[in-house]
Amino acid sequence: MPPAPKRPDPARRSERSRQAVLRATRELVAEVGYAKLSIEAIAARAGVGKQTIYRWWRSKGAVVFDAFLALSEEADGVVLPDTGDIEADLKAVLRATVAEFADPAFEAPIRALNLEIAGDPELAAQYRERLAAPVDEAKKERLRSAQRAGQIRADADLDLALELLYAPLYQRWLLRSAPLTPGYADALVDHLLRALRP
Amino acid sequence: MPPAPKRPDPARRSERSRQAVLRATRELVAEVGYAKLSIEAIAARAGVGKQTIYRWWRSKGAVVFDAFLALSEEADGVVLPDTGDIEADLKAVLRATVAEFADPAFEAPIRALNLEIAGDPELAAQYRERLAAPVDEAKKERLRSAQRAGQIRADADLDLALELLYAPLYQRWLLRSAPLTPGYADALVDHLLRALRP
Repeated sequence: MPPAPKRPDPARRSERSRQAVLRATRELVAEVGYAKLSIEAIAARAGVGKQTIYRWWRSKGAVVFDAFLALSEEADGVVLPDTGDIEADLKAVLRATVAEFADPAFEAPIRALNLEIAGDPELAAQYRERLAAPVDEAKKERLRSAQRAGQIRADADLDLALELLYAPLYQRWLLRSAPLTPGYADALVDHLLRALRP
Repeated sequence: MPPAPKRPDPARRSERSRQAVLRATRELVAEVGYAKLSIEAIAARAGVGKQTIYRWWRSKGAVVFDAFLALSEEADGVVLPDTGDIEADLKAVLRATVAEFADPAFEAPIRALNLEIAGDPELAAQYRERLAAPVDEAKKERLRSAQRAGQIRADADLDLALELLYAPLYQRWLLRSAPLTPGYADALVDHLLRALRP
């Protein structure tokens, strides 16, 4: 969307408030968890009135989802690099993910969100549909391109492929069972590509 | 340890009480979570006095660990089958795991425990050392036997191998992102063995 010519100040102020609300929400989810999160606390942290929040979002759940949606859009976008080299591209993407999860400001709210969705099947379904599915689709699109290039098997199960690539990293991160390193990212890609070789 | 000859009744009563405490602990962790679990509630549910619990365990954490330790000993023991066929053996083990996690009585307390350890680095370290490490060692022993038989690469990273096998299943289960089926267990084994082929 091209920027509006001569964007008026109120719109810019609104956008600043919206971003402050989303940031405050992510911080507070990490600090107190989803269950104890309140619209009052978000408003206070963001420096806006409660009514401002209710004007834009109809529930706490709606704010939290937009907060994480914004984060995931900022963080990895929705198109994966495609240089034609699936190994190099996946390693770049997975190394970036490892680096993100080493950043407490990024990982703490995601950890809080994961604890919530692991304990709440309905929230988990919303998460899958609104947050995970679009990102997974972008990743599968990159794998399809590698299939067309003959770099991975034409009949590969791409959902399983994503799990083989990301679930070990997810588990190490969530349970803190071993360090997340660039070398680990590379090893996961190497193993996946061996498993999916034509 | 061989059973004591002429085991007296009080010992048998003690063992019944101990098992009742462990069972009550698992049930309550699933129902109220670790944070809200109390020794009082465990005692009431198990039909024993609080002092009985304090005589055997020095803390709530100690009871909870023994409760899960007992479950994991009952559930999968510590030696994997070794028929000489690594594919068949791993598929049998992973199908059994899938079946366990389909059982609400088994999975609910494990889910509660996982939420606790994901939010508490110290509990996570204890879990790794006391619960996960012995089971992982048994699994790696089976993989080493497959290495000696030339069925998987001699230089394979066995910790990573276990993650490739179990982390996708763990993630599907924890986030309820897709069904856990016997066919899924088989597919994970097939992919692992392709990745680790000599």
